[in-house]
Amino acid sequence: MAEATRHRPRRGPSPFARRVLEEWKRLALPPGGPVVVAVSGGADSTALVLALAELVASKRLAVSLKIAHLDHGLRGRAGAEDARWVARLADELGLEAVIGRASVGRRAGAARDNLEQAARRARYEFLARAAREAGAPLVLTAHTLDDQAETFLLALLRGSGAGGLGGMSEVRPLDGGEPGVLLARPLVAWARRADAEKYCASRGVRWREDEMNEDESFARVRVRRRLLPLLETFNPRAAEAIARAAELLREDNNALEREARLLLRYAADESAWEQAASGKAAEGFSRNKTPGERAGQSRVPPLRVEVIAGAKMSAVRRRALRRWLALGRGDLRRLEAVHLIAVEGLLDSGRGGRVAELPGGCAVVRRRRWLFFRGPRR
Amino acid sequence: MAEATRHRPRRGPSPFARRVLEEWKRLALPPGGPVVVAVSGGADSTALVLALAELVASKRLAVSLKIAHLDHGLRGRAGAEDARWVARLADELGLEAVIGRASVGRRAGAARDNLEQAARRARYEFLARAAREAGAPLVLTAHTLDDQAETFLLALLRGSGAGGLGGMSEVRPLDGGEPGVLLARPLVAWARRADAEKYCASRGVRWREDEMNEDESFARVRVRRRLLPLLETFNPRAAEAIARAAELLREDNNALEREARLLLRYAADESAWEQAASGKAAEGFSRNKTPGERAGQSRVPPLRVEVIAGAKMSAVRRRALRRWLALGRGDLRRLEAVHLIAVEGLLDSGRGGRVAELPGGCAVVRRRRWLFFRGPRR
Repeated sequence: MAEATRHRPRRGPSPFARRVLEEWKRLALPPGGPVVVAVSGGADSTALVLALAELVASKRLAVSLKIAHLDHGLRGRAGAEDARWVARLADELGLEAVIGRASVGRRAGAARDNLEQAARRARYEFLARAAREAGAPLVLTAHTLDDQAETFLLALLRGSGAGGLGGMSEVRPLDGGEPGVLLARPLVAWARRADAEKYCASRGVRWREDEMNEDESFARVRVRRRLLPLLETFNPRAAEAIARAAELLREDNNALEREARLLLRYAADESAWEQAASGKAAEGFSRNKTPGERAGQSRVPPLRVEVIAGAKMSAVRRRALRRWLALGRGDLRRLEAVHLIAVEGLLDSGRGGRVAELPGGCAVVRRRRWLFFRGPRR
Repeated sequence: MAEATRHRPRRGPSPFARRVLEEWKRLALPPGGPVVVAVSGGADSTALVLALAELVASKRLAVSLKIAHLDHGLRGRAGAEDARWVARLADELGLEAVIGRASVGRRAGAARDNLEQAARRARYEFLARAAREAGAPLVLTAHTLDDQAETFLLALLRGSGAGGLGGMSEVRPLDGGEPGVLLARPLVAWARRADAEKYCASRGVRWREDEMNEDESFARVRVRRRLLPLLETFNPRAAEAIARAAELLREDNNALEREARLLLRYAADESAWEQAASGKAAEGFSRNKTPGERAGQSRVPPLRVEVIAGAKMSAVRRRALRRWLALGRGDLRRLEAVHLIAVEGLLDSGRGGRVAELPGGCAVVRRRRWLFFRGPRR
């Protein structure tokens, strides 16, 4: 590895790096300043950092790269070896590296696929910290088009709508990061995993293999090794087709979430809230309210039934109700279509009070022309 | 078959028929009057007509059923035998049957999957005619949840957006039918193909097998026989999950198409059209116009660039442009994402004229603050 990366002849960036640069421009990423690159040591992230280093060396980018690597503490010695390997790669590229260590196994539940979620959470917390410490407004991950297609297929198998099927954005605010810090994925729109591997090989770099990528007890691994290859017998560019579908659905979802936000603001505006708290509509409610209801009320404004019911398109109405419920509950865990349908059912009922119970002890209560969110009873 | 259908003990409708009745009510289908039921003789459509006949016999529905069967002329003797079998079934159920015959093979191109499209077109023409002749406001087809999942997966393999992935509506206007005639699919939201087969078997009716359903040169057959079973190893209810995703995307698409219609109306309203035809904006255009341009102009009003460009969400903007292009071209055949992106590109350009060519010799021309559709040059 060392030889190849050090003595690469200077004839401008490789096609892979040039493609990364195109994407950089298309996504309007900052042309300079500190950038944190998440590097696991796998082919994808190794390819990304090698390409970025090429672009910096050839003065196509003026960013200052910093490598961030998290050992999730799930793979014992292999994890520690990966961390050492990444540190060595950083060294050879003349880059600073932050190596972190987490104990994801202890945090995760028993289920195999929860492990993946816990690892993901730990990773993003680590990246947010690394960005803060580096004063970097930008964090990059090396998700590929293959990852995007896999994410789509896993969401499809759960029956998700456009929110889940849309998969990963190319650029979005970093979860848990400082305000304004972006997470960008400069490979997700175009790079196949095989492209990354070929590029690493062409640079003489032998990336690290993660044996979890071979473990078929993970649904994602079975999607990669069994489902995608079958789909490619129908259409050799099936992964690209799926990624295109995901992009279209992401745009759809953005447009509809925007409408849902507007609807919600209109249904629950300040004056509505004051009216509900002081006026006639709230009277019946005050008579029956419990401490839990008061708690719920203080967090979440009530909604005017007529505004929500007047939204003709269920795609917008349901998104507005989901956002409102997420606001009340803190998240959407265990909230299923059947619960949303129950809440929608309250819109039709007459003027009497009715209740839709939600998982976790919360509920939505209709009193006259208002929907109230009620927190869990204590 | 005859014995079983005639001597069924009277103890109310079977669970399958009751489920059809529930769906009938949920979809608000008319409780009486003539109804055309498309029956191929396969398990799905045989189950549908048997269930409807049960509901009529037990007076749960007061509709007058008429069977419509089309021999597509693709399967020689087998097709003729199916037609005889359906006629006999109708006879035993005491129902009228219209048996039609088409020559789909001659109409279709060479490709296997085009054959499916040609057969579909012939079938809907036939059903529209049957509805007209029966004076029926309603035509039923027996598409199942399996068909819905297959349709989704085929659209996904093409990289379709919500329009294609959304699949089949439960109720919609009948293509080529009289105004107000509906096509409804009372099995599509819930019935698995296996449910239909079990129900037929429980009624002692041995449906007809179509050997084309075994022909793996059709992508749909491979989806059914290879892809869905693999998906069910991930989630035993994968077909239901996919159908749920399809329904959510159909709702999304309906909401966004509605917005796109509104946007288009605003961008191309009558006054805009008159202004374009007489005012300053059209001047530059008139100087250069060709007979083809005049033809294009007369069909399709120009669009105000500022209105289309002002629509922030690309999900709505692209749908509006697609609708407008469909209006100009007659259909969307061979129109791909790249063409739409080229048309969108015209929105950004300065005030000078620019052209985006479309397949089939059409084009979109920007002149100052307007987009004009130009028909094919002759």
